Amino acid sequence: MINYDAFLSRAAEQMKESAIRKMGGVLAQGRDIVSFAPGYPAPQTFAWTDFQEIARELLSGSDASVLQYGPTRGHRPLLDVISGIMAQRGVKTPTERLLVTTGSQQGLDLVARVLLDPGDVVLVELPTYTGAITAFRNVQAKMVGVRQEADGIDLGALDETVDRLQHEGRRIRFLYVVPNFQNPTGLLIGREKRRALLEWAERRNLLIVEDDPYRDLYFEDSAGEEDVRPIKADDAGGRVVYLSSFSKTLAPGYRVAWIDAPAPLAAKLEMAKQATDLLTGAFDQRIVYEACRRGVLDRQLPMLRAHYQQKRDVMVAALKKELGSQVTWPDPRGGFFLWATLPASIDSDAMVPRAVEHGVIYVSGDAFFVDSDAARQGANIIRLSFSAPTPSRIEEGVKRLAAAIVEELQVRPGASESAGQSRAAR
Amino acid sequence: MINYDAFLSRAAEQMKESAIRKMGGVLAQGRDIVSFAPGYPAPQTFAWTDFQEIARELLSGSDASVLQYGPTRGHRPLLDVISGIMAQRGVKTPTERLLVTTGSQQGLDLVARVLLDPGDVVLVELPTYTGAITAFRNVQAKMVGVRQEADGIDLGALDETVDRLQHEGRRIRFLYVVPNFQNPTGLLIGREKRRALLEWAERRNLLIVEDDPYRDLYFEDSAGEEDVRPIKADDAGGRVVYLSSFSKTLAPGYRVAWIDAPAPLAAKLEMAKQATDLLTGAFDQRIVYEACRRGVLDRQLPMLRAHYQQKRDVMVAALKKELGSQVTWPDPRGGFFLWATLPASIDSDAMVPRAVEHGVIYVSGDAFFVDSDAARQGANIIRLSFSAPTPSRIEEGVKRLAAAIVEELQVRPGASESAGQSRAAR
Repeated sequence: MINYDAFLSRAAEQMKESAIRKMGGVLAQGRDIVSFAPGYPAPQTFAWTDFQEIARELLSGSDASVLQYGPTRGHRPLLDVISGIMAQRGVKTPTERLLVTTGSQQGLDLVARVLLDPGDVVLVELPTYTGAITAFRNVQAKMVGVRQEADGIDLGALDETVDRLQHEGRRIRFLYVVPNFQNPTGLLIGREKRRALLEWAERRNLLIVEDDPYRDLYFEDSAGEEDVRPIKADDAGGRVVYLSSFSKTLAPGYRVAWIDAPAPLAAKLEMAKQATDLLTGAFDQRIVYEACRRGVLDRQLPMLRAHYQQKRDVMVAALKKELGSQVTWPDPRGGFFLWATLPASIDSDAMVPRAVEHGVIYVSGDAFFVDSDAARQGANIIRLSFSAPTPSRIEEGVKRLAAAIVEELQVRPGASESAGQSRAAR
Repeated sequence: MINYDAFLSRAAEQMKESAIRKMGGVLAQGRDIVSFAPGYPAPQTFAWTDFQEIARELLSGSDASVLQYGPTRGHRPLLDVISGIMAQRGVKTPTERLLVTTGSQQGLDLVARVLLDPGDVVLVELPTYTGAITAFRNVQAKMVGVRQEADGIDLGALDETVDRLQHEGRRIRFLYVVPNFQNPTGLLIGREKRRALLEWAERRNLLIVEDDPYRDLYFEDSAGEEDVRPIKADDAGGRVVYLSSFSKTLAPGYRVAWIDAPAPLAAKLEMAKQATDLLTGAFDQRIVYEACRRGVLDRQLPMLRAHYQQKRDVMVAALKKELGSQVTWPDPRGGFFLWATLPASIDSDAMVPRAVEHGVIYVSGDAFFVDSDAARQGANIIRLSFSAPTPSRIEEGVKRLAAAIVEELQVRPGASESAGQSRAAR
């Protein structure tokens, strides 16, 4: 038997299975489990009937390009539609800045490959999205986290971090942020802070990678269009690489997303994509294009906002009812996630088997922290996705979670300790 | 204006636009051009009616997973189907060795990322597939070409090359081959040579990456199942990473392909894919699965073999008629490509504008050579794809090509020189 380890690249040696994807394996075992783990959109919201009609027409055979190879940049009419979507978000985007990607995960991977050499530093919010962590880690970049406040990343800490790293002679390439309903915290970056980040990027001569999959999913009781305005909208200096996606609004199974990057970078990202998958699925792109052209997406959005807002309400009410003051969280004003701090004595990763036993899963907080010493900051935190389960399953899942926590507290010391302290430190 | 060059990774600095994809840009200009450039399958062969019916059923909404996120490895029933296809090809493949990829281009990219560090050597056939060249170049690997004979790669030259590189202290990781109807030459690796390559890999302690998209498309007048038996079929030692695809048999627009790799490597390739695009399009995978399950693929194959064989006949006849002994080629026994050597005085790359003027395009041979000094070996060669144009367009295209060549010979010296010599050198 060959020892394949000897054949692995240095990048491959460091590759790990994603914590969220690993949870998918637990689900696949087919037990009765309420999943608060992966950020899946609710399939009952998908526009099945419209998609059926669109697919029927596209597959008539009258347009061969529907199933053929096509341009790496993306289906040209879809690029025009995306340019229109960007305009609605306040960003004037000519199509030469756009690239269709195979999900935003590919966007993150392409950004990593075009901008990062091994050892380069990426600044990230603490905690941050695991998919970005793995994409950046796979090109052997070093991530350095900056703590967040209630209105997003702490600007003072950001500047201190840059000073420190530059003093150490490290090469910083960009700051990665999820400004709207961040994965995993659900936080928004405040309006003033968005402009301040642009000034910071100019002053420091750095780029910002703005990952924005959730902006359409604001909850109208607590957020509006003006709160989710992209940083990119005010990016006169060309400092921002912007990513967004149709996965959370139309369906993730199509794998259609996009990058809006300064034209010279968009050209390089396109070259990287040529070698990566040639093009995003031609049929998928056409379905998404037709769904936009026919107004399906526009009809979906208000419905989706109401749908996920209701589910957040159900989860928040259930948590209060079942766990009272034992658990705390910042109220999500949009998106899919609730970031819940458990009593300090609980190790959320160690509690996973007990949760599974009770029929519920979540992602433990440490998966979202980048520095090994910082990872324990997430030790008693969990990310709960309220997006996919039905309201009654959310209630059932929170009951099961509460039962698991109660049991866990019985076997761990320090049960009465409040969660307040670790929440404030976040 | 920012100088973005300062932000590029070393990999990005070296990225170039693919020669074949660039030709796509010429086509997109909408002129009357017969395209012999990209290796597109013929869309009139696609099973449009079956796909329409399959899509209608899948989009009924009764199975939410059709449009949802899913496992990175691939849709489980599709993995089982692929295992069955591998068995038909003579390979016993348990599903833990399989990974669905977003086209074989992604397979090549994942292989590059998992097996190659910057500066590592990949051995390739000379000439070789451009998509592999770009995938390996993007991880900053160094490609070294080995010449081919009529039955594929020259084993003596292969051993000499390995000796030389090892003497130079270079780290060689694997040999990349396209054994069946190679892109671009159309050549097959002979049966004995396939076994010899496995022995070579054992002896040298190296891996073989076997890229096999065309094997189902053998032409029954000159090749059969026994000629296209994968190297992987006799790989008792676990030396072979095998790639294949549904792009040439069902449709490229779905972007569904697969890797069969030794299980420890398959696990690493899966981790690399997690960070790259999470999963291959869920809907695409389901369509491909249903097309296999319902026997659509099995019905397609004999029809496709006859279809492309006829087109090869038309192209060969047209070349003989229009260009006589001015052009030579190895007769394709399958696949999409004819590798034509023009009179030695012609520079096929320099002739592109004239060909476009005459309304025909091809890919010039130098795009398929890896060493800068070797690139001129392809100077008077062109790759002609006969797969996509209709028979009458093939005839028209060859007429246009002949007119371009005649004109080119009038303005270049040495017009009467035979092509024989450079063909023998290939």
